[in-house]
Amino acid sequence: MITLPPLRITIAGLGLMGGSLALALRPYTPHLTAVDPDPTTRQTALSQGLVDAATDNLAEGIKAADLLILAAPVRAILAQLAELPGCKPDGCLLLDLGSTKQAICQAMSALPPSFQAIGGHPMCGRETSGLSAATADLYHTKTFILCPTARTTPAVEQIALELVTAIGSRPLWLDPAEHDQMVAAVSHLPYLLSAAFMQQAAALARIDQRLWPVSASGFRDTARLAGSNPAVMLDILLTNRAAVLSQLEQYQQKLAMIAALLQAGDETAARDWLEAAQADYNHYRQTSLENTTQ
Amino acid sequence: MITLPPLRITIAGLGLMGGSLALALRPYTPHLTAVDPDPTTRQTALSQGLVDAATDNLAEGIKAADLLILAAPVRAILAQLAELPGCKPDGCLLLDLGSTKQAICQAMSALPPSFQAIGGHPMCGRETSGLSAATADLYHTKTFILCPTARTTPAVEQIALELVTAIGSRPLWLDPAEHDQMVAAVSHLPYLLSAAFMQQAAALARIDQRLWPVSASGFRDTARLAGSNPAVMLDILLTNRAAVLSQLEQYQQKLAMIAALLQAGDETAARDWLEAAQADYNHYRQTSLENTTQ
Repeated sequence: MITLPPLRITIAGLGLMGGSLALALRPYTPHLTAVDPDPTTRQTALSQGLVDAATDNLAEGIKAADLLILAAPVRAILAQLAELPGCKPDGCLLLDLGSTKQAICQAMSALPPSFQAIGGHPMCGRETSGLSAATADLYHTKTFILCPTARTTPAVEQIALELVTAIGSRPLWLDPAEHDQMVAAVSHLPYLLSAAFMQQAAALARIDQRLWPVSASGFRDTARLAGSNPAVMLDILLTNRAAVLSQLEQYQQKLAMIAALLQAGDETAARDWLEAAQADYNHYRQTSLENTTQ
Repeated sequence: MITLPPLRITIAGLGLMGGSLALALRPYTPHLTAVDPDPTTRQTALSQGLVDAATDNLAEGIKAADLLILAAPVRAILAQLAELPGCKPDGCLLLDLGSTKQAICQAMSALPPSFQAIGGHPMCGRETSGLSAATADLYHTKTFILCPTARTTPAVEQIALELVTAIGSRPLWLDPAEHDQMVAAVSHLPYLLSAAFMQQAAALARIDQRLWPVSASGFRDTARLAGSNPAVMLDILLTNRAAVLSQLEQYQQKLAMIAALLQAGDETAARDWLEAAQADYNHYRQTSLENTTQ
């Protein structure tokens, strides 16, 4: 079933996402190169046989690549895209894993036509990071968003779909602007909610550390995203600022509404509000279940 | 090791918490009675041999009880406490599982001295509810908060500690007011955050249902608490209103702060804010890990 051709692949950024992709793609590629600034990461990847070559130099790492996959934080990807025409005049197939897509897809669209480029975003983040957290099945059953650019050719489209299938993900095509709006709502907003929540609870726990044994699974789940890599998240927030701020503003209004209902002791309206949330949750779970069992 | 004496126990409210407690206490009691308003729940509990008797009538259900455990939503517990002196003039040992403790412990303190009463709150909620969701290990390794009342005697204190140990929980003594402040921060606030988040995302999904496949594990975890039973949560919020509103207000200030930093593009301050959240999360995880491995 899997028809991914034997391409020479370079992955730039061997963290959780790039490292997991390297693990998942290893069986499909005759030559895998890592570009990573961290010497320990490069050494680990080489000694484990995860990659055939490793360098901190983008130009060197992509010299012989058929397919380049950019897997660094968003603003590092943007910097690499600016370097690419000078590094690789003959171009190559190009995919990225960046968490916001408008800025990256615009930069891809501005590349010389020798680059065949497509934007990508696999929906499988974790609060852990680095190569040591990478697993071959990270992408399994996850949605892998693909965004067309002005440099998207049928050839790279086909390769991207085969790659997504090979690693067990499900492709979903989205316009870059649509993507950024959606992830602001389902990913960037919950990260900020979690980070603010974690800080507020921690301030209380510094006064009374019995707060931790009182904290159960609801606390743990709500706090988990606060552990995300701040450098990665900062790039995301700054390259999707308008959509994130719009989500935050709507959210503050929602909180103000339930606060007002509780303040007023409006039991009927408060119950309606809580019941609406539960109905929405049940619908979401049902939809997710249907998708999972498809 | 477990010395819980063979008491005749009545559990009023056979939902997730009461049902799980019945499962966990079954081996320790010669006679277990359920008081529950739902005929299907009573029939299920009887036919599964989970209880020896079941009734919808509190007075009848507690006639022969040595220990009564109130496991209904908070305001139902308050109503039952008001009935108790009339139902059971000779008194009994008394424990509750209510999620807020000030109102309940005040009502317990006002009971006749024939009642030996202690407030309880096991920290093991779930977003599911009902007897069908109950499991014998729900309480295992969880913190079980105990709150003293004016009717707490050494005898009921001892029984409560033995019961908590028998079901595999860890006792933590808290003053009722301290308890309510803490759970407002670690439980009631995250419920409201989740409920508001779920509603906001669902409104977007009604416009474009591709939002669901874009939603990954971070979404799922942030949305989970929104599925909590609205009737249970409403009782909690209304009997802990001041502490909840105070937590909400602080939280809104935190969100306004990060929104302002992003709006201003203050990268340094935004990075500090994200890093503080991650540091707090890492400390929390470390502390939780230490508690778990104790």
